Parts: sequence; structure tokens; C-alpha cells
Amino acid sequence: MEFSSKLLENAVNEMSQLPGIGKRTALRLVLNLLRQPKEQTLNLAKALSTMRSDIKFCKSCHNISDNDLCEICINPHRTDSLICVVEDIRDVMAIENTSSFRGLYHVLGGKISPMDGVGPNELNIQSLVDKVEQGKIKEIIFALGSTMEGDTTNFYIYKQIQDFDVVTSTISRGISVGNELEYTDEVTLGRSIINRIPFEISLKS
Amino acid sequence: MEFSSKLLENAVNEMSQLPGIGKRTALRLVLNLLRQPKEQTLNLAKALSTMRSDIKFCKSCHNISDNDLCEICINPHRTDSLICVVEDIRDVMAIENTSSFRGLYHVLGGKISPMDGVGPNELNIQSLVDKVEQGKIKEIIFALGSTMEGDTTNFYIYKQIQDFDVVTSTISRGISVGNELEYTDEVTLGRSIINRIPFEISLKS
Ligand SMILES: [Zn+2]
Ligand SMILES: [Zn+2]
Repeated sequence: MEFSSKLLENAVNEMSQLPGIGKRTALRLVLNLLRQPKEQTLNLAKALSTMRSDIKFCKSCHNISDNDLCEICINPHRTDSLICVVEDIRDVMAIENTSSFRGLYHVLGGKISPMDGVGPNELNIQSLVDKVEQGKIKEIIFALGSTMEGDTTNFYIYKQIQDFDVVTSTISRGISVGNELEYTDEVTLGRSIINRIPFEISLKS
Repeated sequence: MEFSSKLLENAVNEMSQLPGIGKRTALRLVLNLLRQPKEQTLNLAKALSTMRSDIKFCKSCHNISDNDLCEICINPHRTDSLICVVEDIRDVMAIENTSSFRGLYHVLGGKISPMDGVGPNELNIQSLVDKVEQGKIKEIIFALGSTMEGDTTNFYIYKQIQDFDVVTSTISRGISVGNELEYTDEVTLGRSIINRIPFEISLKS
């Protein structure tokens, strides 16, 4: 692509760094911004840079938070001995939407995926194991999407904690095999949490 | 959507103002930025805000430009009495790519579309008519996509200039009827410029 403006070219190049946004789409988005009031672009730029600079992750559950501890972790009405292990914040949002879970979360930040170079050390796994070792957790619900990477991650964590006195379960497979959690409808997702099954049993099914 | 962070919510809201980007896609894009080095987000934000604040439009052809007059308009090797009328900069880029046109452009900034509230006054039409009245133009090629809005716009401009001594043509309909210009392959587009036909004749076909 040959651009008549360096400013335009820069904006398109940066925009096309985003996943799933090719050069042509980036150009369409940027041209749209040029047709809108200037404030829209400036607000977008400010929101992105402020977010990236100032955002925090909850020191306990690793969820995105504006404070050291997130709203869920500091809520006294939630059961802190019950932990739901999820991949990322979208899963927290999806499960919170169902109103079927009153424990806390543990956000791994991804799934083990050797193909993508993501090993256990790239994820927030050790801090979960530490919590288990400290005896703070009675039950862990694995709520990763039911993909191969999800199963691998569940199993890896399970091996780390199986000798401790903690009940493990996975959300019931109402979620379609091979599907990501966030695309599951609320009813299915809510029910699959209520109908969770012990992790050992899920290994045999 | 319930967010655990105002910063995240703001970023997602601003991102989802972009056309074709829903809340869910915006969240995916923003979470991806959080996983990348901070510089990526800051560079994107800077490129967008600098572009929106500093970008200029060529005073003659209305193409996006970093200077008062664009590179094409100041090029002495191009024929300034031959004007190709296009909708936006993407069409300029597409035609330049074919290397089949050595005149100048006139960028309308859109097409007449009553449905979208775009009338002739919202577009750069008067400045084209002015150039024709000043006797600066010998030939005008209409190169809008062959949609109803494109035809309406062509015809509107044609009526404004038909009494002046200027040859009008449209690019030949190698471009599929109903298709936007930018999605046409280079060969078809280049050929349709070379095989352009007088506008009056195109009205009868
Ligand atoms: Zn937390
Ligand atoms: Zn120009």
C-alpha cells in the first residue's frame, strides 16, 4: 500500500498490529475516524494509553482491577475458600453474568499451549498452588474452555495440588466440546457450574 | 457487560465506537494490547491522535496529505487538465496502484446518499465545478463505484458541468455492477480506466 501521508500510514500500521485487523480494515477504521469529530479519536487514544499505563491486576486473583485487590476479592459476602479457575477476565465476566457463582476466581492469564510457547511459568499457576498449600482453599472449580489446551492446563494444576486436602471439580460439560467459555450462553454456563463434577471423574469420561 | 475496571471499560467503550467493532471484539482487542509490550499501545494511541490532529487535506484535490498540496498535485509530469473523480483516498490508492492514470484526482469525500443524510453540500463538489468554470479542466473521468449512490453522484455533477467545454467519461464497466471500487482487482481497474466511455453514452447503456 502506498500512502499519500506519513501520518495516515503510521496510524494504519499501528492499527493493523491488532489481531485480526489487516491493513485494509485498518485503513477503513482510520478513515472513519477522520470523518468523525476530532474528540472521538483523541478520546480513544487517551483511553488506550491511560488503560495500558495505569491498569492493575488484583494481587490475589490476577483479575484486571483498578485497585490492588479487585471488587470480587474484597466482597465479604463471597466464599473465599471456593475458587473458580479461569483463563482470563472475559471468563470472569461471563460467569459473573450468570449470577450462579459466589466464590472467588483465580485468573491464569492463558492456557498451557506448547504450540504458542506458553508454558506453566507464563501463567499464574504457582500463586494458586501456594494458596492451596497454605490451606486457604477447600474447593477448586476448573472452568477453562473444553479444548485440548484447557484439558492440559486443568490436568497440570490438578497434579500440583492432588496431594492436598482440596476438592476439585470441573464445570459440567454442558459447554460444547471444543468451544471457548466466553461464547457459551448464560443459561448453559450457569447450569454447568451448578452441575460441576469431581475432576477425577471427568478424567474418565 | 460488567467490567472490573473503569480503565478497561473506557478503553472498550471507545474502541467499540469504531464501525464494525462490537463490544466483544473491542474487549478482545484491548485484552490483546494488555498482553503486548506497553509501547505497542502507546504507539497506537500516539499515531491516532497525531494523525487526527495534524492531518491535512490537499487544497486542490482534497486527498489526504501531509502538506497543503499533495504529491500528486505537485507532480509536474502529471496532466492537470485531466481529472479523475473518486469517492475517497482508498480509490486514489487503488487507481495509483494500476499505474494506468497520469492525470490528477478530485476526492469527493463520499457519495450522494439521501438515506445516510449525505447531500451534495457535504461533498467536495463545488470546488470541482469551480475548476471547470475556470476552464482548467479538459476531461473528467467519473470513477465512483457502480452503485446507485455512485450513479446519482456522477449524474448530479454531470448536470452541473454539462454546459461547459469539458469531456466527461466514466470508467468502463469492467468493474462489476454493485461493487465498490476498492475491491476491484488491479488489472480490471486499470483496463476500465483505459477503456473509459463518454458519460452521455454510459447513461444510455
Ligand atoms: Zn481479585
Ligand atoms: Zn492534491
